[in-house]
Amino acid sequence: MALGRCRYVLVCGGLGPTTDDLTRFAASDALGARLVEDATSLASIEARFRNRGIEMPEVNRRQALIPEGAAALPNPAGTAPGVLARTGAGAWLVLLPGPPAELAAMFDAEVRPRLERESGRTGGRVRETLMVAGLPESVLQERILDLTPARDAADRLAILASGGEIEIRVTGPAGRSAEVRGLADRIAERLGPAVFSRVAGEHLEHAVGRLLERRGERAAFAESLTGGLIAERLTRVPGSSGWFDLGVVAYANEAKRDLLEVPEAALLAHGAVSEAVAMAMAEGARRRSGNAWGVAVTGIAGPGGGSVAKPVGLVWVAVSGPVSLTRRFRLPGDRPLVRQLTATAALDLLRQTMLAAGEQRGGEAEGGEAPG
Amino acid sequence: MALGRCRYVLVCGGLGPTTDDLTRFAASDALGARLVEDATSLASIEARFRNRGIEMPEVNRRQALIPEGAAALPNPAGTAPGVLARTGAGAWLVLLPGPPAELAAMFDAEVRPRLERESGRTGGRVRETLMVAGLPESVLQERILDLTPARDAADRLAILASGGEIEIRVTGPAGRSAEVRGLADRIAERLGPAVFSRVAGEHLEHAVGRLLERRGERAAFAESLTGGLIAERLTRVPGSSGWFDLGVVAYANEAKRDLLEVPEAALLAHGAVSEAVAMAMAEGARRRSGNAWGVAVTGIAGPGGGSVAKPVGLVWVAVSGPVSLTRRFRLPGDRPLVRQLTATAALDLLRQTMLAAGEQRGGEAEGGEAPG
Repeated sequence: MALGRCRYVLVCGGLGPTTDDLTRFAASDALGARLVEDATSLASIEARFRNRGIEMPEVNRRQALIPEGAAALPNPAGTAPGVLARTGAGAWLVLLPGPPAELAAMFDAEVRPRLERESGRTGGRVRETLMVAGLPESVLQERILDLTPARDAADRLAILASGGEIEIRVTGPAGRSAEVRGLADRIAERLGPAVFSRVAGEHLEHAVGRLLERRGERAAFAESLTGGLIAERLTRVPGSSGWFDLGVVAYANEAKRDLLEVPEAALLAHGAVSEAVAMAMAEGARRRSGNAWGVAVTGIAGPGGGSVAKPVGLVWVAVSGPVSLTRRFRLPGDRPLVRQLTATAALDLLRQTMLAAGEQRGGEAEGGEAPG
Repeated sequence: MALGRCRYVLVCGGLGPTTDDLTRFAASDALGARLVEDATSLASIEARFRNRGIEMPEVNRRQALIPEGAAALPNPAGTAPGVLARTGAGAWLVLLPGPPAELAAMFDAEVRPRLERESGRTGGRVRETLMVAGLPESVLQERILDLTPARDAADRLAILASGGEIEIRVTGPAGRSAEVRGLADRIAERLGPAVFSRVAGEHLEHAVGRLLERRGERAAFAESLTGGLIAERLTRVPGSSGWFDLGVVAYANEAKRDLLEVPEAALLAHGAVSEAVAMAMAEGARRRSGNAWGVAVTGIAGPGGGSVAKPVGLVWVAVSGPVSLTRRFRLPGDRPLVRQLTATAALDLLRQTMLAAGEQRGGEAEGGEAPG
């Protein structure tokens, strides 16, 4: 139906091998073209299974079916190839697999260039990205309010917050790339060290890894409420073994005591969610690993476990290293959000501490104080 | 525009406090209603900031603006309230915040009941869910092919695979709930222990936690390539501290040796990605924690680090406990997918091993062999 109204129709998902994967059949009906087996796609699907040492199940064969006259789009990350077809009326129908990683890779590799070529447009806009941490979205907004382009300006600003990180996108017409760049520079200057990257798609784990790599140092992590999320984020980065070697998820008090050498007395006197235990965990991680840096988090993620004195969302973060410090947070949200914001806070505190330590080392610190 | 064509229009996102959050202004234009400040929403936004010990930034005030005559929908998980408005022509306009957790919670709590009441429809279909692990999607499909309803049947089957887990949804008209249940039962019987839950939204970490809780046991985890993902998945479950106490992310060989007591000789003779090291890691995690079970994963997530003998995707999983075993996997996909499939494989191997151990304990094992 959309094919009659639109010039480009993209359909995502439903290209799998099972009987509820109906997209190819619906496309065949819509185009009025019968399905034919694409030999290249079939060979690639078979090769994918062969590489895993298993024979291709018969049902996967249907993934090589494409409407007659259409082109198959190779899928480097999965078995389902995509389809690019043109209707008699000149509209484009593109079928892509649903898994986000496959979808994004195939759109960028196969679809975007074709659409740009066909449409004669090459996007036509330029974009600068700033990745920011350590500021609430509304505080950030107030700080750059006077730099914000008017609503009818050619340049635009988008502010996207997610899990404690904020992405600022400055976009404008391709002809105004210098102005777009200039505006991004002014915002970066205004926000100072809160900007941790100017590369789209980078997160705090990339910035932390880059700093550690540059310093020739490693960090070890001791996690309680985040349960491994910090280590998991760091090890998403290919090559992270160069600067990350050890994470301890010390969920129980015994694990904090036995693996991180947190003194029993500190656990008894202050409880597991306390400044003293956070710092003892960070020191334990540093000693255990022999690394320059140890970082620890302890807190109450909820939904249970909170009290008046220690409510859900109370979190202590500690960094032990050339500069040591602790910071207390009161984080909003439910269990998943508290955990996510804690991981972001810990990575950002390590980053900011390394920046401060670097300045001290280089003699450029203003007063020599660590932040916070 | 959609308001002129549709009876219900839902808009998600753009309700934040920053200047690029324009949804409320667009809605005001579309409805021809000026924006007014909703006192209840303002009080709730202010309270949210007060609870965190910070003053509400002035920009957040605009989040309390709603079109005159519309109803504000409370948002328990964020600052942005939603909006429910009715046009003169009788169409419904619903504005909801973009963050998925807030969106889903508000839709279920505020929007769905109103729409059902207004429309006089209550869904009208019933659904049974089966969560499956340890089978490729296409193998599963072949195994239940003869149970699949015909394409024109009232009952339907959807098979959704994600990260190594497969969700099977059987749906049908509310009047056929016995048939829907019966079909789900037949599929469950056919798939046997591969079905780990019949509750929608449950994942392997819930099933593993439930088994450990029932047995009064705990498990400790030693992770290499997954970098903390297994521990992170387990600790997503509220109350997981009852059966999970320790995870070690031993990314470097030194960490495997020092914290998990993996023999240097095993690392030298077989390399870190080997059956011997996987089992030594699992035994180390078990000894360290004093738990009934230790589970370990080691492998090559890529993109670098692969070789002909040990290609990207090669993974060893080991379980040490009342029953011990190892299993070798050749996993497809890029770094994130290999890590995700490894975590799923490890959780499922522990689950299957506990099931086998339970049968042994109860004397019900067929032949007394552990799986794999």
